[in-house]
Amino acid sequence: MWARTMRWGDVRMRILIAGGDGFCGWPTALYFSARGHEVAIADSMIRRKWDEELGTQSLTPIASLEERVAAWKELTGRDIRIFIGDLTQWEFVESMFRTFAPEAVVHYAEQRSAPYSMIDRAHAVFTQVNNVVGTLNVLYAIKDIVPECHLIKLGTMGEYGTPNIDIEEGYIRIQHKGREDVLPYPKQPFSFYHLSKVHDSHNIMFACKSWGIRATDLNQGVVYGLWTDETQLDPRLYNRIDYDGVFGTALNRFCIQAAVGYDLTVYGKGGQTRGFLDIRDTLQCVELAALHPADFGEFRVFNQFTEQFSVLELAQRVQRVAQSMGLQARIVHLENPRVEKEEHYYNAVHTKLLDLGLKPHLLSDELIAGLIQTAQRFRDRVDFHVIKPTAKWR
Amino acid sequence: MWARTMRWGDVRMRILIAGGDGFCGWPTALYFSARGHEVAIADSMIRRKWDEELGTQSLTPIASLEERVAAWKELTGRDIRIFIGDLTQWEFVESMFRTFAPEAVVHYAEQRSAPYSMIDRAHAVFTQVNNVVGTLNVLYAIKDIVPECHLIKLGTMGEYGTPNIDIEEGYIRIQHKGREDVLPYPKQPFSFYHLSKVHDSHNIMFACKSWGIRATDLNQGVVYGLWTDETQLDPRLYNRIDYDGVFGTALNRFCIQAAVGYDLTVYGKGGQTRGFLDIRDTLQCVELAALHPADFGEFRVFNQFTEQFSVLELAQRVQRVAQSMGLQARIVHLENPRVEKEEHYYNAVHTKLLDLGLKPHLLSDELIAGLIQTAQRFRDRVDFHVIKPTAKWR
Repeated sequence: MWARTMRWGDVRMRILIAGGDGFCGWPTALYFSARGHEVAIADSMIRRKWDEELGTQSLTPIASLEERVAAWKELTGRDIRIFIGDLTQWEFVESMFRTFAPEAVVHYAEQRSAPYSMIDRAHAVFTQVNNVVGTLNVLYAIKDIVPECHLIKLGTMGEYGTPNIDIEEGYIRIQHKGREDVLPYPKQPFSFYHLSKVHDSHNIMFACKSWGIRATDLNQGVVYGLWTDETQLDPRLYNRIDYDGVFGTALNRFCIQAAVGYDLTVYGKGGQTRGFLDIRDTLQCVELAALHPADFGEFRVFNQFTEQFSVLELAQRVQRVAQSMGLQARIVHLENPRVEKEEHYYNAVHTKLLDLGLKPHLLSDELIAGLIQTAQRFRDRVDFHVIKPTAKWR
Repeated sequence: MWARTMRWGDVRMRILIAGGDGFCGWPTALYFSARGHEVAIADSMIRRKWDEELGTQSLTPIASLEERVAAWKELTGRDIRIFIGDLTQWEFVESMFRTFAPEAVVHYAEQRSAPYSMIDRAHAVFTQVNNVVGTLNVLYAIKDIVPECHLIKLGTMGEYGTPNIDIEEGYIRIQHKGREDVLPYPKQPFSFYHLSKVHDSHNIMFACKSWGIRATDLNQGVVYGLWTDETQLDPRLYNRIDYDGVFGTALNRFCIQAAVGYDLTVYGKGGQTRGFLDIRDTLQCVELAALHPADFGEFRVFNQFTEQFSVLELAQRVQRVAQSMGLQARIVHLENPRVEKEEHYYNAVHTKLLDLGLKPHLLSDELIAGLIQTAQRFRDRVDFHVIKPTAKWR
């Protein structure tokens, strides 16, 4: 039986990182392994196939998952177990849960690109089926095999959209016609990908309520940065970083564009404001959730980001840092391929993880300069043809 | 180009009834055909296969879809076109939309039983994939092939759950920390089936906003009754009616139980309050939605029911009518297989369809007596083994 709260050093847990070969998953697996937990990675390797499909690749060269895990063992003596398979296949999920019996599952194993989900009908359907069915299978595996397991699910701040009121953490107290209730925060997602996360959230909330299992939904902002203590130990441990128009995200993409002399491409006016966080804070947040699990029957929601920026602000900041490094980066406004407000109110509460002890790495010029330097180092790997947005919302 | 509002008699439209072999779909197809519209039915025949899977059948004997449509032609001279196929198969959907070019689609083609979705993992996954992918395909077909087509989608009042505040029609004005916005009404569905409808609603809302297409979501209450003007014309036109623990719904099931001398099975205390409507009002509501289409870009939500009852009230009313017919019906309280509140606040707004002209058929003792008589007539078709609930939520 789990204690409600565990202190660092007291607890070693069996933790499954689903999607553990990806941008967030791989550094998370190393982070928990470095801290002595028993870590397993589940991955179908599909993220690498999407690179092939889109004709792109990670800016950084990345080793195979087997090479990564072997290098980690060589450097630290620590084992990470690998389960290769697809969460939409029940036989795989069932067998893995019976074999590993995780005490916590960190679930990153979803198609995570909004533009990818908007390429066409087939990509929209794929994204929703992949994400929803994978999560349903994990929920049933927890219920039937490891009912005490804590599901730590990656959601997205994009589930909320851009309402004209403050965004709360998952729930909102509503007073209406003389009565009141605390209800799930209304969702207005922007893409079939973001919609898939809304579907997941509703499914998980229901499973917690009906089955008494427990879950934390981490509505994560846009992640920037690349390096963590573990991934920079050895080239075989390098993390991936995406700069293409489909999987690349705002800040990282601007840094890479600046490094290779490409214009910083802002969609529309750039007034779109979102929550952002450093990838090192992703790891901290997931660890805080794991060490302070939800109660049985509880569907707990944290907004996981540290600062809000508009897209144009970020482009201007990258431009300024690039200039200090002798690089002239021009900002261009592309016709917005997305249907979204380019000027809007945005204020999202994000105190629950701070209350648990999160110490944010706020965005620094040094981090931006470091990203630009990394991109300069690997600039020969950049294909300029894949930088522009291709998927259109309209 | 459509007029914003059309009066009865002015307009003949090409209308596709998806799920047109089912309990709501078949009478809807006849209703529109009788009024001179050009009607096509899409159906995969899967509802009849679920009967086989569950070892049950409609209380009323029903003809094959081909026999039904041939009888309708023979009796009225009117043609109904049939497309046999599955909405989750894009090739089928695309070909049908190109061939028929509907001006309105009434979309009933979903797995509609909460208990069926809760049988096990496979049924939960099937329900969500079937319902969500089918609707995604319809949305893409409208966008790509018939962008002026009005989607009339059957949702369910169960999307809202039982909040402690009044339920509004799709949206709610929220004042919060000195600001305000009109946002989608928060959803707390009770089953993987109800969840699939919530997923649909979010997907359709996004498609309307992004693509400028138009849709009406009819959040329907529990439908009771059986006969409509058209289905009672000839035995070959009879509609199906379900009494089993999986597809049977509260009022109809009680009437059939009373007719065959089975106890009226109330789950738990029976204080669960829901919206109900006569199947003849389903047809009226769908027609009102079709004749007054949503605006382009609009995702319009109507709450489609006429009266609220608790489950126990309905059982008591059926008991009383049965007694007046010389039948002794005993009410028994079964352990509730569902996770739901058995006593709760419930007040759902339902004025928009009334504003469009709905003339409700309120629940009458005559209708209950008629259902009991129908069930007596077909009592030899009742298998007592399939009446009890089998799927469990816990």
